[in-house]
Amino acid sequence: MNASIETLVIIGGVAGGASAAARARRHSEKTRIVVIERGPDVSFANCGLPYHIGGEIEDRAELAIQTPQSLRALLNLEVLTGTEAVSIDRAAKCVALHSPADGSRSTLAYDKLILAPGAAPLRPPLPGIDLPGVLTLRNLQDMDRIKSAAAAVDRVLIVGAGFIGLEMAEQLHRLGKSVSLVELQRQVLPQLDPEMARPLENALREKGVELLLGDAIEGFEERTHGIAARLKSGAVMETGLVILSIGVRPESGLARDAGLELGPRGHIRVDAWQRTSDPDIYAVGDACETEDPILGKRAAIPLGGPANRQGRSAADHISLGEKALRYPGSIGTAIVRVFEHAAGITGWSEARLKAEGVPYQTVTVNGPSHASYFPGAETITLKLLWSPEDGRVLGAQACGIDGVDKRLDILATVLRARMGIDDLAHLELAYAPPFGNAKDVVNVAGFAAGNLRDGLLSPVPDLAAAAGEQIIDVRPAAVSAKNPVPGARNIPLAELRGRLGEIDAARPVFTICQMGKTSYFAARILSNHGFDARSILGGAHHQMR
Amino acid sequence: MNASIETLVIIGGVAGGASAAARARRHSEKTRIVVIERGPDVSFANCGLPYHIGGEIEDRAELAIQTPQSLRALLNLEVLTGTEAVSIDRAAKCVALHSPADGSRSTLAYDKLILAPGAAPLRPPLPGIDLPGVLTLRNLQDMDRIKSAAAAVDRVLIVGAGFIGLEMAEQLHRLGKSVSLVELQRQVLPQLDPEMARPLENALREKGVELLLGDAIEGFEERTHGIAARLKSGAVMETGLVILSIGVRPESGLARDAGLELGPRGHIRVDAWQRTSDPDIYAVGDACETEDPILGKRAAIPLGGPANRQGRSAADHISLGEKALRYPGSIGTAIVRVFEHAAGITGWSEARLKAEGVPYQTVTVNGPSHASYFPGAETITLKLLWSPEDGRVLGAQACGIDGVDKRLDILATVLRARMGIDDLAHLELAYAPPFGNAKDVVNVAGFAAGNLRDGLLSPVPDLAAAAGEQIIDVRPAAVSAKNPVPGARNIPLAELRGRLGEIDAARPVFTICQMGKTSYFAARILSNHGFDARSILGGAHHQMR
Repeated sequence: MNASIETLVIIGGVAGGASAAARARRHSEKTRIVVIERGPDVSFANCGLPYHIGGEIEDRAELAIQTPQSLRALLNLEVLTGTEAVSIDRAAKCVALHSPADGSRSTLAYDKLILAPGAAPLRPPLPGIDLPGVLTLRNLQDMDRIKSAAAAVDRVLIVGAGFIGLEMAEQLHRLGKSVSLVELQRQVLPQLDPEMARPLENALREKGVELLLGDAIEGFEERTHGIAARLKSGAVMETGLVILSIGVRPESGLARDAGLELGPRGHIRVDAWQRTSDPDIYAVGDACETEDPILGKRAAIPLGGPANRQGRSAADHISLGEKALRYPGSIGTAIVRVFEHAAGITGWSEARLKAEGVPYQTVTVNGPSHASYFPGAETITLKLLWSPEDGRVLGAQACGIDGVDKRLDILATVLRARMGIDDLAHLELAYAPPFGNAKDVVNVAGFAAGNLRDGLLSPVPDLAAAAGEQIIDVRPAAVSAKNPVPGARNIPLAELRGRLGEIDAARPVFTICQMGKTSYFAARILSNHGFDARSILGGAHHQMR
Repeated sequence: MNASIETLVIIGGVAGGASAAARARRHSEKTRIVVIERGPDVSFANCGLPYHIGGEIEDRAELAIQTPQSLRALLNLEVLTGTEAVSIDRAAKCVALHSPADGSRSTLAYDKLILAPGAAPLRPPLPGIDLPGVLTLRNLQDMDRIKSAAAAVDRVLIVGAGFIGLEMAEQLHRLGKSVSLVELQRQVLPQLDPEMARPLENALREKGVELLLGDAIEGFEERTHGIAARLKSGAVMETGLVILSIGVRPESGLARDAGLELGPRGHIRVDAWQRTSDPDIYAVGDACETEDPILGKRAAIPLGGPANRQGRSAADHISLGEKALRYPGSIGTAIVRVFEHAAGITGWSEARLKAEGVPYQTVTVNGPSHASYFPGAETITLKLLWSPEDGRVLGAQACGIDGVDKRLDILATVLRARMGIDDLAHLELAYAPPFGNAKDVVNVAGFAAGNLRDGLLSPVPDLAAAAGEQIIDVRPAAVSAKNPVPGARNIPLAELRGRLGEIDAARPVFTICQMGKTSYFAARILSNHGFDARSILGGAHHQMR
């Protein structure tokens, strides 16, 4: 480490702060490294909290990865828990500290300072928000509080159906609770486009979780045995416990008070080495915003992966200066499991692209998680978004039972590499029957995107877009009879060439099948015979769930 | 399709040939497409054959994906099974055909010709090679033959421990057979570096499969009840059935006789659109060689994924000309499952780089398949190879119980993108406790590679390289006592800073731990205190299996 760095102070001792401390120690044995943590714990596994509440992670000790003592022994860190940083004197380069437990105050000088304060769960100023049964989940104490409160009630109301809300719904259902989930948007997991989140909604409903979508809380009232939540729709939900998971706000008050530059939503602005507007102060994790490497905008991604790697980058820059590897910005890769289902995203969603006015094209395809002839294959639905200008991939979403994480990781790598749809077509992925496919769903998405660009595929995004038109269901007759497509006539693909006379060539024709593949084949046949034919994306599997 | 293409003839109707035919039909309804297939079946799932022999795929019909009748109905193809192409008249643009069943001969004119003849299992001219109990596996008939022969015997000898040999060993063990496996190399799966294949060897031995490594067959003799195989080592193996899986040779005789250019090992040479040296003749699949996109050499990769996508590329070029997407060359991504274990590779192995004299650097790291605090995490070992010149990744290998395919696919994407070790460090992969890690093993490989380049990590590849030197085992005392490292002294990491005086500073010191991570931490502490310290890669997990 740069010999002049005598003292490194890190505010926040969980994901980003802990990573920065560990990396800084690898660079130097001599630097004094002090970690200030407001809570009682450092370096705990915050992403695991819901799973201990639900009992899937049985042993609480699994989540308490390090203690101040273990960090002293392993990394020679000074860890001050139960200590708040109340202000930064940038001119004097010192931090004012306060320990609420004993009321003591002190100051601590730094050569370099890393801010890793994280983000706090939102608690909007609603009537009754401070009732003891209205809880949020951020740390081990919150977890203990929810776990013990949940043990005493039958019904739980979760507000907010993002990643944490869905994990909590799953885990509380696992405990046998009757779970209701309220979400302001008309879908769960609003980070995804609505149709890609639908399988999660179906899975939740099948398990008996009550979904109240497009609704919101107006206030809470105490009842003899629990809480009544009043909704905007007029409904009143009686429940034993409320868990608020409607989002987080960056804990950037200390930075703001110190005059550091903030972004439009209050995140600390940093450069590619995580430096704030003060070159001796860095910020990492949920409290900061970095560049969005996909479209060159700004990104604030409150997730564990970015936080950990940003911490490492900050420590590297403190030690190595401009030789240090730049943090390349966050692309927002995320995944959630809901019972046997998984769904996730990397990069930009269609809703975000639309809202920002960015031009895009999109296809949605289905494919098996591994060779369909090998036992256990499950269907994955993959939605791909790219730039019509150069074919560069802008985002992807996937949902299914198995192998969703793998496809998201491939696409996250594609995004980082700034690859295009043609590159997807020729990714050479690992194929043996238990693991993959000769043409994986990722390849197929690349094929379909290229077909769309080249005019071989003229898809319509959903069945509704074909309503009232001539729709041909090209599935085998038995499949079609069992699960008919509303408004469609059945002409199986194998019979299509012989039955062209039954189709009105003066009107557009829309083809649909089970998975979106043979309807494309059918549309090719029809187009090559002069029809104005379009395939309905994703097939009945995707359209009719 | 180009209006002048009246007849497209495809020789070979399985992976690459079937893909080419299907894609060609999407381009045009008018072209006459004729598929010539020597065998009785077209478009069957050849990668699934071992799994029907073992009964994991119960229904044989799962493998027989299409019939000549279904291809006629769905794609309007003319499929001539049981028909051999005996010669090509390039000047007259026609193929001479022969049907052995009825002895009939004919010729077929083509505008464009695609050769997709595949590769045949090697059968070296050893004594007894033609005994009825010495079988190979290529098609459904071979499969039926092996399945029925296996039912009648207790012991099976498999010759060759590549992908098919290992799959057959697993599946025949599943049937309760006593399995022996002979391999010329001193390791199974010689496509991988030996230490990365070792977990498969251990898994096979644990299940009772006999491994005869570094040995070879000299000949077979008939016995009253079975076959005796004589080995180079002098051993004689009595067995009921022999399965030869020692590799394949490209079926390029027809191309060679027609004067098409071949590569040094007899593969048909093609350009980036799969064109042979005759612009009206294309070749796809196992019989051809393409460019190696990693080092610019040539690659012949007899696998299903490349074959299928090459078929598509050839059909596109026939229809679209130079607007068609180029086939970017094969990188050789492959995976095998052996009982609960998986192992695979993408790109170049260390052995191949060494043999070609290509400079490289390498690290091997371990990491959990998903968050270690969440139930069910298994250790993945990942070996990374890159160019010391610019950090570009040249290859990767992985082994473990779970998530091996995902890491290979990420690295295969990295190879296709020509990304470097620093890109690996900041891949933003999907993280939730059931699916991944805040710092995935792929990120960790990037970190370790960067540390090596930057001089923070001075590893030694194996324990043997530290033999006779000062070795410090930095695992907790209890772990070390239970499973001691030969020749090592235990100083747990947490005690290291206080016990530096016990280490001889005049001699090099080598650190080892369980997974290769804390030994790196220890080496950093020692280096920062002036010791000449090196960490032993991959830890006891990797070194002592």
